[in-house]
Amino acid sequence: MLRRYVAPILLGAFMGLPAVADEVTTFTLENGLEAVVIEDHRAPVVTHMLWYRVGSADEEAGTSGIAHFLEHLMFKGTDMLAPGEFSATVEAQGGNDNAFTSWDFTAYFQRVAADRLELMMKMEANRMRGLILSEEDVRTERGVILEERNQRTDSDPGALFGEQRRAAQYMNHRYGVPIIGWRHEIEDLSREDALAFYQKYYAPNNAILIVAGDVDPEQVKALAETYYGPIAPTPGLTERLRPAEPPQLAERRLKMTDPRVAQPYVIRTYIAPERNPGDQAQAAALTYLAELLGGNGTTSVLAKALQFGEGAKAVYTSAFYDGTSLDLSNFGFAIVPVPGVSLQEAEDAMDGVIASFLEEGVDPAAFERLKRQLRADEIYARDDVDGLARRYGQALTSGLTVADVQDWATVLQAVTPEDVMNAARAVLDRNKAVTGWLMREEAGQ
Amino acid sequence: MLRRYVAPILLGAFMGLPAVADEVTTFTLENGLEAVVIEDHRAPVVTHMLWYRVGSADEEAGTSGIAHFLEHLMFKGTDMLAPGEFSATVEAQGGNDNAFTSWDFTAYFQRVAADRLELMMKMEANRMRGLILSEEDVRTERGVILEERNQRTDSDPGALFGEQRRAAQYMNHRYGVPIIGWRHEIEDLSREDALAFYQKYYAPNNAILIVAGDVDPEQVKALAETYYGPIAPTPGLTERLRPAEPPQLAERRLKMTDPRVAQPYVIRTYIAPERNPGDQAQAAALTYLAELLGGNGTTSVLAKALQFGEGAKAVYTSAFYDGTSLDLSNFGFAIVPVPGVSLQEAEDAMDGVIASFLEEGVDPAAFERLKRQLRADEIYARDDVDGLARRYGQALTSGLTVADVQDWATVLQAVTPEDVMNAARAVLDRNKAVTGWLMREEAGQ
Repeated sequence: MLRRYVAPILLGAFMGLPAVADEVTTFTLENGLEAVVIEDHRAPVVTHMLWYRVGSADEEAGTSGIAHFLEHLMFKGTDMLAPGEFSATVEAQGGNDNAFTSWDFTAYFQRVAADRLELMMKMEANRMRGLILSEEDVRTERGVILEERNQRTDSDPGALFGEQRRAAQYMNHRYGVPIIGWRHEIEDLSREDALAFYQKYYAPNNAILIVAGDVDPEQVKALAETYYGPIAPTPGLTERLRPAEPPQLAERRLKMTDPRVAQPYVIRTYIAPERNPGDQAQAAALTYLAELLGGNGTTSVLAKALQFGEGAKAVYTSAFYDGTSLDLSNFGFAIVPVPGVSLQEAEDAMDGVIASFLEEGVDPAAFERLKRQLRADEIYARDDVDGLARRYGQALTSGLTVADVQDWATVLQAVTPEDVMNAARAVLDRNKAVTGWLMREEAGQ
Repeated sequence: MLRRYVAPILLGAFMGLPAVADEVTTFTLENGLEAVVIEDHRAPVVTHMLWYRVGSADEEAGTSGIAHFLEHLMFKGTDMLAPGEFSATVEAQGGNDNAFTSWDFTAYFQRVAADRLELMMKMEANRMRGLILSEEDVRTERGVILEERNQRTDSDPGALFGEQRRAAQYMNHRYGVPIIGWRHEIEDLSREDALAFYQKYYAPNNAILIVAGDVDPEQVKALAETYYGPIAPTPGLTERLRPAEPPQLAERRLKMTDPRVAQPYVIRTYIAPERNPGDQAQAAALTYLAELLGGNGTTSVLAKALQFGEGAKAVYTSAFYDGTSLDLSNFGFAIVPVPGVSLQEAEDAMDGVIASFLEEGVDPAAFERLKRQLRADEIYARDDVDGLARRYGQALTSGLTVADVQDWATVLQAVTPEDVMNAARAVLDRNKAVTGWLMREEAGQ
């Protein structure tokens, strides 16, 4: 059965923007594959994405990195395609393809001319079950990934520091383990690890197909039935229950010193609730809180208080929050002091601004500006069909529904200043926080 | 084959003490059960212990507490014994029994008159494979364990703080998860979890039998063959490879405030190497380091510097280290300040003493006193046959051999002051440390 979801009129009518209608069609195949079709007939292109409900936080202890490793290995050969042939075919058709892994999902996508959709589906469906891995493939790709870790993590003190901080932030949940994996565990990942993970999680009943662009939902469904339909589901795949956090009772601090640090900074994250199905109000309030305190631009509470004028303490401030997460997310602040200001002074100044905000509350004018801005953002978002596709994919692999995605704009518009302050008071609890200092040298900053 | 291990003469001859000879007999049954017999004919009693090479650090993520839970459940019924009958039988024979669980092992023991050994073995061998668990047993015992957690952990801020600290100390290894388990995970432990753990790990090829007391090794072997011999091993039990630590790069600090805190304190632990088979020298040096800096009594470096006279900063100081561990252990300091001294002052004073020690080195007279003391301790230890039995059990479940246990006294005697200082410099690295403050109230500490 095809089901049509139409966005609230409130938004579609706003400002008369030439936006894609936020209207999606969904269907589910008998083998459990869910699909979302987002029509956009402005150009004859299509984005074909396959999202798996599995990410690094689903890995077994001791095998960190296997989700991301498998993502790489998926570009090796299958029973139909030679190693590398998948991407070469996409490119030969004038398209491009890629893949990405996060804590909660692994996703594959191709963007091609709309009449190549069938070929994409045929190839993607084939590699859902048809992957063939040689020991040599695994050895070679492990080297590639270790080199990726060298470049992105081990040679970047900020990235290393992020790993150390997350490990301190999460006491039990695997969000505390890096997506790329700990080096010593990557080194031990085997062909058997990859195949076991693949056989368990790469299955139609663990996947979400997202097709966005110049397509007809009926045609997409017919193609999906042809190519994905015959694939047998993995039996007994249970709900994704990952180890949860115990109560966090102690404030944590970290200091890391590395001579490669270009700019010392302070960063603090607090464990924070995530968007949950039918229950997105607190996450919406936290979205406001992050924007108000330290959103992009120069008008945030932190920026205005700390970045300008004679006594400026900071060259950069930020508050951040992403509620699209299957389990507990986090809410954070960062501050980069101006030269001559110590990390302690910068942190104290930041805490002073946060304390004043908690006392004084939300500035009504700033709140209204942000509310309008968020409404506009939601509408502009509808113009970016690839962005919409990612939004649905990420939400659906994070435990949300199509209805939650479509409600989000409305939930955001319903937030009040009081909601923001309640969320701030609930979340800004130092016992649930990790404060990190990244420094070039121990003394004197 | 029976194999006899005799302790180095150096120790046996020392001071002419009436010690038990450190002479043990070992054998291995065909099904993989290892056994150590420690003879002590001074009294007609025997301690019968069965140690399993499995502890809470072997649990799967999300099932914390199952090792300890199963330990409780082992006193329920079997195909031969009614629930509670095991302990009732031991008691009716004038003996006593108990069990304990740690990160690396689970152990069961009975102490009875020597002529009851056969009965003990018969019952212990029976419950290795014959356990029968009803849903009701599991529900009842889960309640008992939750109440145990209430009393020992949740009502004790020091215990809660210990959990939070260990979670920060270990970034990846399950030594960061409490043995009793996180409350929310205990609540979800099921009969199936317990039975799966039991069936996998409770097997002759994963157990060490230790019999100590007024016994004859040949007779022990004959009994073991009769009762443990027929039990089939678990096939495919692999080496215990638990998730290992990544490099620890950032100094961590924790603060916890709880109105129930009677005495605020500072505690710091550093990741530290453990005793390894054939390689115990660094662990021996760390044993000296802990004793010299903050061993029991009033003569340690920390106690002398901080606990006496006009400007005394502390009512208690300590340094601690236990090298008997399958994976990375830790080395720690603690200081309880005198009233009126803040935790910051106490920590600074402690760090001052440690820094002076690192500069000045080991006091030769104190070193020689300690060396003699450790030698005497090792000899006195031979007088406590139950202590010896525990020592072998703990060592063998921590990856060490009988030879390592017997070498330990010699390795300790070979340590030099330079070894101690090298170990201190290697281990006292703040990037691998967690410093915790436990406070009654936020302000004024």
